[in-house]
Amino acid sequence: MTPRSYTLYGYWRSSASYRVRIGLHWKGLPFVYTPIHLGKQGGEQHQAPFLALNPLGQVPVLEWEEEGRIRHLAQSLAILEYLEERHPSPPLLPADPFLRARSRQMAEMVNAGIQPLQNLLVLRRVREDYQGDDQEWARLFIARGLAALEKVAIETASPFLAGKAPSLADACLVPQLGNARRFGVEVAAFPTLLAAEAACLALPAFAASHPAVQIDAPQAEG
Amino acid sequence: MTPRSYTLYGYWRSSASYRVRIGLHWKGLPFVYTPIHLGKQGGEQHQAPFLALNPLGQVPVLEWEEEGRIRHLAQSLAILEYLEERHPSPPLLPADPFLRARSRQMAEMVNAGIQPLQNLLVLRRVREDYQGDDQEWARLFIARGLAALEKVAIETASPFLAGKAPSLADACLVPQLGNARRFGVEVAAFPTLLAAEAACLALPAFAASHPAVQIDAPQAEG
Repeated sequence: MTPRSYTLYGYWRSSASYRVRIGLHWKGLPFVYTPIHLGKQGGEQHQAPFLALNPLGQVPVLEWEEEGRIRHLAQSLAILEYLEERHPSPPLLPADPFLRARSRQMAEMVNAGIQPLQNLLVLRRVREDYQGDDQEWARLFIARGLAALEKVAIETASPFLAGKAPSLADACLVPQLGNARRFGVEVAAFPTLLAAEAACLALPAFAASHPAVQIDAPQAEG
Repeated sequence: MTPRSYTLYGYWRSSASYRVRIGLHWKGLPFVYTPIHLGKQGGEQHQAPFLALNPLGQVPVLEWEEEGRIRHLAQSLAILEYLEERHPSPPLLPADPFLRARSRQMAEMVNAGIQPLQNLLVLRRVREDYQGDDQEWARLFIARGLAALEKVAIETASPFLAGKAPSLADACLVPQLGNARRFGVEVAAFPTLLAAEAACLALPAFAASHPAVQIDAPQAEG
């Protein structure tokens, strides 16, 4: 496999960006991290230069050069599956077919079942169009999704969600638990998820991916 | 590969159930279709027997027996990836690595980018908690997502979304276009998507998966 140079367009606090950072670091792939500021001037992700990379206006986007062409890929799970196929070792999916499937199920429970309902655009609509409590909206869907994830995870966790090594499911779980705390969801009710998170956070690949240590994270004032 | 007997728990109009029916029919896999009525008595998907299969309370769920154990798998894309790995021919992903990745990206644009924002639970909350126009909410997110999908699809469609054969992306597109029309989204603005849809609907696997021909679809009165 020829070494490649990846660029990741992301945002420090975006949970989907965090998932892809975990995948890149776990596989030991060097990458250039290019911040896209989701708040500045209505969001750089909604401006023409970024929309050319991803018309949906969402981070993350992975970029690389291949046979003289610049390639762009969006959607965090599509990116992680791509990395898994191109750079299979160390893996981000278990070898056992059922555990692989359950890892993907749990990843999608976060990716499609929770995160879309608490993203910036949805919360803005709840707040501005309906004068709704967007924090309460987010808490409801996060708590509901994590409660279901806890029940599914109990069947396979050991201590990672789908067995003895971190997988796609964990790469989705850890960022989502961060969001849960930020919105004030009581996470103590999910001991299986917390055990998997603790096992992940002890790994250098997860530590290096944490939002707080990204170059676009706000710096503590000295 | 030992022949297996699959059971699919689904609902005729659920777009995620429709995706999995497409995958099963495309691969020629026999299955028993067990309807879960999403409207009856507050929704069978929220009742204990179904929650034991999927704690998130969503169709579809695939069930099979393996080495004497009954297995359950939820999340439509996790199910389709499982079927792709266990029954690789005919494939539901292109062979080319970049096209595979783009097929997954486009599938996720529907699976995580559109459908979660127009599912029953979200629309009920918009309607009941905020007295919002849930139809307008759905139209907005569907139209926004399909407009982005059209732009991404142009790069690879021929006429299926990721090349010359249907793939995961098409299995997500066709049900989502059905939803788009149901909510009153003007789909004529998406010619690339409509061409892919027309190519799909000419295939027996897609015809057999259509909501209108499922055993739980309301019958026209004679």
